[in-house]
Amino acid sequence: MRHFTQELEQLNQLLLEMGGLVEVAIHRSVHSLVDRDKAPAEQVMRDEARINELEMRVDSTATRLLALQQPVARDLRFLTAVLKINTDLERMGDLAVNIAERALSLLAAPPVKPMIDIPQMANLVQAMLLKSLDAFVNSDEQLARSVLLSDDQVDQFRDTIYSELVEYMQKEPSVVRAAVDLIFVARNLERIGDHATNIAEDVVFYVKGIDVRHHAEKIS
Amino acid sequence: MRHFTQELEQLNQLLLEMGGLVEVAIHRSVHSLVDRDKAPAEQVMRDEARINELEMRVDSTATRLLALQQPVARDLRFLTAVLKINTDLERMGDLAVNIAERALSLLAAPPVKPMIDIPQMANLVQAMLLKSLDAFVNSDEQLARSVLLSDDQVDQFRDTIYSELVEYMQKEPSVVRAAVDLIFVARNLERIGDHATNIAEDVVFYVKGIDVRHHAEKIS
Repeated sequence: MRHFTQELEQLNQLLLEMGGLVEVAIHRSVHSLVDRDKAPAEQVMRDEARINELEMRVDSTATRLLALQQPVARDLRFLTAVLKINTDLERMGDLAVNIAERALSLLAAPPVKPMIDIPQMANLVQAMLLKSLDAFVNSDEQLARSVLLSDDQVDQFRDTIYSELVEYMQKEPSVVRAAVDLIFVARNLERIGDHATNIAEDVVFYVKGIDVRHHAEKIS
Repeated sequence: MRHFTQELEQLNQLLLEMGGLVEVAIHRSVHSLVDRDKAPAEQVMRDEARINELEMRVDSTATRLLALQQPVARDLRFLTAVLKINTDLERMGDLAVNIAERALSLLAAPPVKPMIDIPQMANLVQAMLLKSLDAFVNSDEQLARSVLLSDDQVDQFRDTIYSELVEYMQKEPSVVRAAVDLIFVARNLERIGDHATNIAEDVVFYVKGIDVRHHAEKIS
């Protein structure tokens, strides 16, 4: 039993290492975009392999423990939460790579406009990820629920950024390509927020045993 | 043991029901887009709840069997494949909803141009999903591997559609909004293709015990 507890702790450490790498990747991709600096974006590309490697290790370790240890109650919920959070983190890593690619593509042309909303939206979704992982580490249900409340704010940013960029494109055909890149960046940030929300929902389930996905609380 | 086999079979049926619903949702969302008919898109919105409900049932059933039955070898790989395919199918359902939303948004304006590439790209990714699920049902490794080969073709469609739509927007500002919708449709189709690829990779792992994600075959 002590051995199992140690394995769970190791798994926890692996997942947090992955979470840290994903946080850094998102930060670097946005930094590259906002400061028009290609070095951080290139670093994001190089670090992707390590994130993918961790995903596979977390996945195989969690599945093995599930199958061999017959965990129940909280340990079972911990392992299923790890499996889900692992998938979300890996996708967030992919999204950081997408943003890094758009940042590099944007360096080929002059800036469309001063960036205000995109850095703010990026700060918001980065805070969501940080909080959802802290909530997991500390089994903090309230903190996890606070992440769920940021969803509307993310959507507002996305809509504002979209409308503004469409207007720019309509006025000035030469910015079309760059503006489409920025619309995709906003979409990628929105999806990073969605994955942080998924993690927060998994934390609530892990701590309380309540499924809050798809508004299951309301239905059942 | 007979009971466990029956439960695995029931789980298989649930997953295939979900796969069928997702196939229909993708088909309807594209139909709505291409034929400028809002009824199928609205049906896709209504059917989303059922897909989400199935996702939660598959998820809880597979996790319970993993934890309580201590499956090994092929049964273990079957259950982990089911968990992963389940997540991919649910995301594909979301992507069909996204396409349906874009289809409805596009009905508000005259058509940008005759649609040729998007329906062809849609046919390709729908065939990928069909094949990956058939490969799962029949444990057909060769069929699963054939899905992996379609990836490049999907990317080619995405690039062609993107370049063409950027050109349209640059020439004619009035089509910007509709063209951005279509770029997102192509992106959603590309992601449906990615999820079909994920499923095909899971089938190879399930049948052969080889992990082909992230080119793990080459690394290890």
